[in-house]
Amino acid sequence: MRGVVLHRPGDIRVEDRPDPTIKQPTDAVIRLAATCVCGSDLWPYRGIEEVAGPAPMGHEYVGIVEEVGSDVWNVKPGQFVIGSFFASDNSCEICRAGYQSRCVHAELVGAIGTQAEYARIPLADGTLVPTPELPSDDLVPSLLAASDVLGTGWFAAVAADVRPGKTVAVVGDGAVGLLGVLAAKQLGAERIFAFSRHEPRQSLAREFGATDIITTRGDEGVAEVKELTNGLGAHSVIEAVGTQESMMQAIRATRPGGHVGYVGVSHGVELPGEELFFSAVHLHGGPAPVRRFLPELIELIRNRQIDPGKVFDLTLPLEQAAEGYRAMDERRAIKTLLRP
Amino acid sequence: MRGVVLHRPGDIRVEDRPDPTIKQPTDAVIRLAATCVCGSDLWPYRGIEEVAGPAPMGHEYVGIVEEVGSDVWNVKPGQFVIGSFFASDNSCEICRAGYQSRCVHAELVGAIGTQAEYARIPLADGTLVPTPELPSDDLVPSLLAASDVLGTGWFAAVAADVRPGKTVAVVGDGAVGLLGVLAAKQLGAERIFAFSRHEPRQSLAREFGATDIITTRGDEGVAEVKELTNGLGAHSVIEAVGTQESMMQAIRATRPGGHVGYVGVSHGVELPGEELFFSAVHLHGGPAPVRRFLPELIELIRNRQIDPGKVFDLTLPLEQAAEGYRAMDERRAIKTLLRP
Repeated sequence: MRGVVLHRPGDIRVEDRPDPTIKQPTDAVIRLAATCVCGSDLWPYRGIEEVAGPAPMGHEYVGIVEEVGSDVWNVKPGQFVIGSFFASDNSCEICRAGYQSRCVHAELVGAIGTQAEYARIPLADGTLVPTPELPSDDLVPSLLAASDVLGTGWFAAVAADVRPGKTVAVVGDGAVGLLGVLAAKQLGAERIFAFSRHEPRQSLAREFGATDIITTRGDEGVAEVKELTNGLGAHSVIEAVGTQESMMQAIRATRPGGHVGYVGVSHGVELPGEELFFSAVHLHGGPAPVRRFLPELIELIRNRQIDPGKVFDLTLPLEQAAEGYRAMDERRAIKTLLRP
Repeated sequence: MRGVVLHRPGDIRVEDRPDPTIKQPTDAVIRLAATCVCGSDLWPYRGIEEVAGPAPMGHEYVGIVEEVGSDVWNVKPGQFVIGSFFASDNSCEICRAGYQSRCVHAELVGAIGTQAEYARIPLADGTLVPTPELPSDDLVPSLLAASDVLGTGWFAAVAADVRPGKTVAVVGDGAVGLLGVLAAKQLGAERIFAFSRHEPRQSLAREFGATDIITTRGDEGVAEVKELTNGLGAHSVIEAVGTQESMMQAIRATRPGGHVGYVGVSHGVELPGEELFFSAVHLHGGPAPVRRFLPELIELIRNRQIDPGKVFDLTLPLEQAAEGYRAMDERRAIKTLLRP
């Protein structure tokens, strides 16, 4: 089959890769209906995260089940399924508490590489959620978004304790941040401040529910949030970048007793204990347990109550993956969908 | 009046200090019934926290109201009152959300110094909670404990989301940690692991509700918590020290999705972002909003349902404050009560 491989920073190739097969009785093999490039794929692409040798890429996926192992019972060949970037048994104590991304048997789907025609999904019964019927084609981008960026933005909003009537600020205008705006809106937020300097992203943020766009950042951006909230700061802040600056911006924009939900994968972040202590904020985040939210998100998409697929502003054939990465790296595209 | 002053690290003196007077119409002046030495007083005493010149000491207090300003309505001369280390108006938006320690008008009582015969308490209406009657003498130590160490341990347990049936670990066997054990027990924890190597503290931890004593610490202590919890870690961990080692021990002893409630004042702590991210724990803490819990804690004490005053294992006249500090510094005493 064909699949995307990163050889060196900046060097994305689409190559022949071995067809995946059932290795464990709990595996399924799926044929990808769509896959995409994640903001976190840009870390190794930019050389900020090290890669040892050629690495298959991709961890977002929706598709049709081709084959299942002998110990898979809930998922059948022919079904359309959505999974997320951690395979999980969905039955251990950690999964049952809603933290499937830290399942005691968790496996990183990223190591498998779903930017490809086919993919082996471990722990298929726990990981994959089938849709009740084959979805119409126009729903596929939104279902693909649920696989990671929507699920992650949603988790960030839940981690930030977004509730009806609350004021929310969102740091990061990538797909996750934008879908954090959408999640905040769905969860009833009254005001949603989106930090963004990019016109197309500002528009999408507004479309998803942002009430205010803030074009400053760092401590200047924090001051603006305070000005808009009687000097107090937001109740809830979603952090969707993962740098030192974005984390401090999120913590400082939050009022005492408020909540920071952070989902940007930390790169070189060191949190100053004393400032964090006196900030009196709640801090929660990490790799999103997307599986927790999938059934609910799939329903919202099937009922056309949300349209998270709008974050895909570039669609390319899988063979043109390199251009898909470039467009995101240069911020010409918010998110690239790849059609195998 | 007589009051405690720190001149240099290790140099505690009891001296004549000016009698406090009403400065603001919202002030009250109280005559201390009892006061005490806090673990956090040991930071400047040990020279770890800098002190500029002679500093009046103390921020824990119970006493009788002597005089109130013209704008004080809820508190009357002759009443027995309990307050905490941050004066707060108890009416601003932050107070109403339960974060009185970050009240928009917060004032640090520590700057006033309650290790003395009298003290001026700002924002008396918001800060002070009167008891319905003059308490009997044997309840005074417990009511004094409510002023800080009990309120702080209680907040830590609430911040760590302690609930019925949960497994809790407590890092720190000072008065706050021990009262964190008591709080966890009251909040319904099923198992409570207390980290302690000191026999008298171990006994008190058991008396307050600890089910297991762990004598190892650091990563070894973490391994022991994991062994006792099917490899998962505790649901809730209370951190009551404030060092790099204790924070990392708390975070690592918590299961994914679990909660760390941290109340040890951070000294030189830097939290590694990436480890925190992948830990998937909730982190909440800071200066405890003791005022939030005072009415409830006073009731538990008046009804003799809890006896937090047991943390005072040394009682001295105010004049012997220096010995009170020394005994705590050398860990001969858990906590020193001073009688003015």
